[in-house]
Amino acid sequence: MPEQSPLDLPEGDPFGPHNLPYGVFTTAGEPEHRRLGVRIGGHALDLGAAAHALGSPYAALLAQPSLNPLLAAGRTVWQDVRRAITAWVTVPAHRPQIEPLLHPLDSLTVHLPYEVADYVDFYASENHAANVGRMFRPDGEPLTPNWKHLPIGYHGRSGTVVVSGTDVVRPSGQRKTPADAAPVFGPSVKLDIEAEVGFLVGTPSEPGRPVGLGDFRDHVFGLFLLNDWSARDIQAWEYVPLGPFLGKSFATSVSAWVTPLLALEEARVAPPARDVELLPYLDDSAQDEPGGYDLRITVALNGHVIAEPPFATMYWTAAQQLAHMTVNGASLRTGDLFGSGTVSGPEVHQRGSLLELTWNGRDVLDLPEGKRTFLEDGDEVTMTAWAPGPDGTRVGLGEVTGRVRPTR
Amino acid sequence: MPEQSPLDLPEGDPFGPHNLPYGVFTTAGEPEHRRLGVRIGGHALDLGAAAHALGSPYAALLAQPSLNPLLAAGRTVWQDVRRAITAWVTVPAHRPQIEPLLHPLDSLTVHLPYEVADYVDFYASENHAANVGRMFRPDGEPLTPNWKHLPIGYHGRSGTVVVSGTDVVRPSGQRKTPADAAPVFGPSVKLDIEAEVGFLVGTPSEPGRPVGLGDFRDHVFGLFLLNDWSARDIQAWEYVPLGPFLGKSFATSVSAWVTPLLALEEARVAPPARDVELLPYLDDSAQDEPGGYDLRITVALNGHVIAEPPFATMYWTAAQQLAHMTVNGASLRTGDLFGSGTVSGPEVHQRGSLLELTWNGRDVLDLPEGKRTFLEDGDEVTMTAWAPGPDGTRVGLGEVTGRVRPTR
Repeated sequence: MPEQSPLDLPEGDPFGPHNLPYGVFTTAGEPEHRRLGVRIGGHALDLGAAAHALGSPYAALLAQPSLNPLLAAGRTVWQDVRRAITAWVTVPAHRPQIEPLLHPLDSLTVHLPYEVADYVDFYASENHAANVGRMFRPDGEPLTPNWKHLPIGYHGRSGTVVVSGTDVVRPSGQRKTPADAAPVFGPSVKLDIEAEVGFLVGTPSEPGRPVGLGDFRDHVFGLFLLNDWSARDIQAWEYVPLGPFLGKSFATSVSAWVTPLLALEEARVAPPARDVELLPYLDDSAQDEPGGYDLRITVALNGHVIAEPPFATMYWTAAQQLAHMTVNGASLRTGDLFGSGTVSGPEVHQRGSLLELTWNGRDVLDLPEGKRTFLEDGDEVTMTAWAPGPDGTRVGLGEVTGRVRPTR
Repeated sequence: MPEQSPLDLPEGDPFGPHNLPYGVFTTAGEPEHRRLGVRIGGHALDLGAAAHALGSPYAALLAQPSLNPLLAAGRTVWQDVRRAITAWVTVPAHRPQIEPLLHPLDSLTVHLPYEVADYVDFYASENHAANVGRMFRPDGEPLTPNWKHLPIGYHGRSGTVVVSGTDVVRPSGQRKTPADAAPVFGPSVKLDIEAEVGFLVGTPSEPGRPVGLGDFRDHVFGLFLLNDWSARDIQAWEYVPLGPFLGKSFATSVSAWVTPLLALEEARVAPPARDVELLPYLDDSAQDEPGGYDLRITVALNGHVIAEPPFATMYWTAAQQLAHMTVNGASLRTGDLFGSGTVSGPEVHQRGSLLELTWNGRDVLDLPEGKRTFLEDGDEVTMTAWAPGPDGTRVGLGEVTGRVRPTR
């Protein structure tokens, strides 16, 4: 009986040929040789080698150490390349050439698959924003007056975006509670996560030329899970009036595998009904296609599920975020990232941050490894997700995981 | 009588051999060939060609299209290279080889001389922060409670940093005054400037390793003028709670010439006395050398001087900003920029923004070309500066200039 092929996947595998997320990896034998790959089942296909072996016209584009050249090539090429790869992993005649180029995931090292240009983070979940408002402005309206008129966002630190699996050192900084006469300095005592979805820009745009809602999929290549690590005590003391800075800038973790939007056609859903009339550049009610994505996220702390945030509940869509981000004429570059903001649904177990899950430390999470309000040194946080795929399948998103190391 | 050499500079020329700011330029004849240069008087010296002609060991480092390799080489190399260039432009025996490599400034095109990694903007002038507080929070304290305990900053958009001389398209966006029932959309009607000094990071740092006050000059290569264009109406509506975003992200202009800190030894001054005790990582009272820089800035609108902001009045020094920016473990990359924040002195004519000069439009500037509160289409803003140099000389900073274009 012949050995089973890695391409003979179990029925319903969320990383089947309907998915094909992209990443960059090295093997133990050639740790300096970064290779573009797609994930198929429990393996990564070396795309440069496959393209070469099969005489693909995209061999040069795929024999690269980074996704950036493919990202910059634009949507038509994204479609063509995906069509080609789908044939490589599904047409039986290609198996003799493809199978030797498949590497088991547990044998390889993944890397940040693109060079990050600018990184913007939004605040697009109404449940999250309202929870934060109730905690920190208990006497006012939960949402600020601008919240339903524009997707609030800010720029984060590109240089500290790290790939899934990278340890995160607990940040130190200033904090001051109302009880303190002066700020104190030390390792954060309120280290938190934020479960988010990130979007990766491929096609750049010209300065002074906004990118409209309808052009979203010409510019955005794919999406991935993102953990926006947050030191709540540092953030609380620093953020008025210019926003979050050191409370966020120490690390942002992203999946090693980027799911192309082309794999998520069946996951598109209408966003929640809007309560206020939107200005024309944000009004998506007349768009041909729905702007939301039905992604089901799971957040685990040391292996125990603590939250299941539903991305379909996000008030602002990624297309609206992109339209807003460029409406002032700001240009896009290949490798720009933007995060959705914490994904929190209406239910308690759907909240995507410990801040909300423990109501800023008031409610303790009782986990098998001990009680938690915020993160302890050694804690490992892992986010996974899936989306509806064609014919009842699931499209798996690459996980994002990271472990907290003590302050040096 | 022999023709005068471009190296025979008038006495007191602020771009003499005591200065030697770095830039990147192309000539009309070879518009694709970017060259590293230093400015000397009214000329730029082609550094790659000079290093080659004189057999310098730094020929490879200087024959580059960008400053980044020199920036990454570290402080010892910065010192060696500066010593070498000083000899090239001052030792008479080198003249036959050097003079042909000098290009008149008005014959060449300047470019952004480095690849920007992350861009952070601070808020370090007490006069500026207090003026803004008085305007927007008239019933509260002018400064927020954190202001004297930490240098407030936020991340800006790296991808829209442009070199001096680049036109700036007036941004559009949402604005809402208290009189408006809902936000309105259109070109900004409060387009402003911010006169700032920018700092350029050369030597990177490790994640999780703060850069202390005493290591500032190991990491920061030089400084330059920066105009942080700001749409006050867009900013006012968007900035609560996550800070400035589209009100700033459309453009940030920087000088084409970067003055090395090595040229500014005589410009160092003590910062203003501190009113509150600082946490140890920010306390510069025991540092061997003063952390401030005595830079005298002039802001001109369509050729008419409207402000003379004194950088020596800045409350927070660049060394404190760097120490703060990294104290949470955030790493530095070669090409990171950080801006000082608007430079405003205590006097009215020392204010570095139209917001402050016109008190948010209340006071009209009566200029020969017409009355102004904020910028009109076609307006040109130019910032220049100088610093005290050795033996009573002045060190000139490269100007930063830009003209406002109408919204497309």
